[in-house]
Amino acid sequence: MVYRVLQYGCGPIGCSVVRLAMTKPDIEIVAAVDLVNVGRTLAEVAELTSPLEVSISDDPVGILREHRPDIVLHATGSSLKDIFRQIESIVEHGANVISTSEELSYPFRENPELAARIDALARKNGVTVLGTGVNPGFLMDSWPLFMTAVCQEVRHVEAVRVQDASQRRLPFQKKIGAGTSPEEFDRLVKDGHLRHVGLPESVAMIAAGLRWELDGISEEIEPVIAENEISTDFLKVMPGQVAGLTQIGRGMIKEEEVIRLVFKAYVGADDPHDAVVIEGTPGFKAIIKGGVHGDLATAAMAVNAIPRVMDSRPGLVTMKDLPPPAAIPSKTRGPGSESFFR
Amino acid sequence: MVYRVLQYGCGPIGCSVVRLAMTKPDIEIVAAVDLVNVGRTLAEVAELTSPLEVSISDDPVGILREHRPDIVLHATGSSLKDIFRQIESIVEHGANVISTSEELSYPFRENPELAARIDALARKNGVTVLGTGVNPGFLMDSWPLFMTAVCQEVRHVEAVRVQDASQRRLPFQKKIGAGTSPEEFDRLVKDGHLRHVGLPESVAMIAAGLRWELDGISEEIEPVIAENEISTDFLKVMPGQVAGLTQIGRGMIKEEEVIRLVFKAYVGADDPHDAVVIEGTPGFKAIIKGGVHGDLATAAMAVNAIPRVMDSRPGLVTMKDLPPPAAIPSKTRGPGSESFFR
Repeated sequence: MVYRVLQYGCGPIGCSVVRLAMTKPDIEIVAAVDLVNVGRTLAEVAELTSPLEVSISDDPVGILREHRPDIVLHATGSSLKDIFRQIESIVEHGANVISTSEELSYPFRENPELAARIDALARKNGVTVLGTGVNPGFLMDSWPLFMTAVCQEVRHVEAVRVQDASQRRLPFQKKIGAGTSPEEFDRLVKDGHLRHVGLPESVAMIAAGLRWELDGISEEIEPVIAENEISTDFLKVMPGQVAGLTQIGRGMIKEEEVIRLVFKAYVGADDPHDAVVIEGTPGFKAIIKGGVHGDLATAAMAVNAIPRVMDSRPGLVTMKDLPPPAAIPSKTRGPGSESFFR
Repeated sequence: MVYRVLQYGCGPIGCSVVRLAMTKPDIEIVAAVDLVNVGRTLAEVAELTSPLEVSISDDPVGILREHRPDIVLHATGSSLKDIFRQIESIVEHGANVISTSEELSYPFRENPELAARIDALARKNGVTVLGTGVNPGFLMDSWPLFMTAVCQEVRHVEAVRVQDASQRRLPFQKKIGAGTSPEEFDRLVKDGHLRHVGLPESVAMIAAGLRWELDGISEEIEPVIAENEISTDFLKVMPGQVAGLTQIGRGMIKEEEVIRLVFKAYVGADDPHDAVVIEGTPGFKAIIKGGVHGDLATAAMAVNAIPRVMDSRPGLVTMKDLPPPAAIPSKTRGPGSESFFR
């Protein structure tokens, strides 16, 4: 089966999703929606190397009616409030949705009302809605939850992601406050501008998967101060300036911490890694030195989840509800391709 | 919902499953079947610390008719041929099955005819059959497959499990040839007595999950020779004797290896660990130093899979087809229990 896909949102993540989707024989990109770049071709905006006759439109309703895609790959924003009307409109037009919106990855606790409305609407229209990505969506929720399958009991779950932001996109470096002064950092945090979105959602997903009833979820953000000068392709951080942030999400039962998610992203991080630490029977620590490349992985999650979403029951689902996605074969590269060794 | 469980097979693994199931509020053990220990109570055989009014029967058909369990936890053997009639009988009596039979974990390639018969029978009777455990079932198949979700493409998958067999049960130590001479080892391998069962099944599951069409699966077994004297609780290995085995399963496309599973189990192993190595975009290595405790984890997998199997479509399913199990809460211990901090 070939899935007919509408790309909704053609920023850096959306374009990365498009480039990946183009390598998959099961996927046909039939349309694209964005507020900028209107009228330009998707091939040009996403810098595709293979031809694609799709122009970018700013009229999602018209495009949805005209093309009737099987599924929309949606990458326009983090906040569920901001994207709610977009998701609503897609679902009302009978298309399935995979969105990289962080708050959509597990919205039942932080945005219960919007979650209930999306769920009801998706069921009514017989389509499935999923929020996913590498984080939230995988490294700090699905993965730790997955690893508990081998546990007779679990007492505490920790996930750690330490990223060297030097290699990431400029929007990412800005999102973590790199290059600001400590005072500016505090102000930006206070105003809600500096924050990795998704930790409370990940805490809530883990708790739900383990059937733990949390009394609270807390979150704190601290700056990481540069000791030495650090330069990236995009900006320079002087000693005493902010190199990035440490953000900790906690799930609490009474006064006791039972889930801890530690997210550190700063330019010049010297030990980037991803880890899952389970205290339980058995307990263990799984670690990926160097960590998983965020931008590559988020595009992969969105694309690899397509078959699972297409096969899912209707409604708003989360990663913990679906059989785990696996990498889907490429057209030309790797063992799954038609040309491999043949 | 409380799941009414029949324990089928009360050897070391079966008893370990029973002890774990007893800690779960969602599970009621209603009956037990075994060929030995008949007439004794399950509480006695499994060394339970809490009371349980269940006697062991050697009449599975009578017991299935009398108790009509929701699900049977089955742990009698590795070979699908050997256990086929048992599974058939359970399914015909309308019960779901989770079995620790290694060959049932992914039988479609190595035992396609038996797999098709079980699948057809399960569909006809509206029940689900799953083979699972820590390996096969998790560490060398589900886990590597799960990790590929973040990959844009995958070129090679490797899983490594190095176990110090000193801490395992005597049957396990015998199964890996510990304490034999190299000649005895070779003879036992040739006669099919010395072998970790499941590598070809795991290779096949990974390939199926990635939609790779393998031309062949190969397997080789070599002894690990002890350099120093090693004593376990059960046996002594002298220098020059066999401490255990290295077993390698490979998935091939033409002459090219695309999947490699390296299983090493020997008494005195100095770097026990579990690892997944993905060559792809992105590529990475995930490692669990010390490894995951096999006996604890296999019981956990069997028990934690219960809700997933109960919610599954009818038929013969495998771990890659189900939403991943997570640890289910205990009655009294840990954050999911009713008494936790309350």
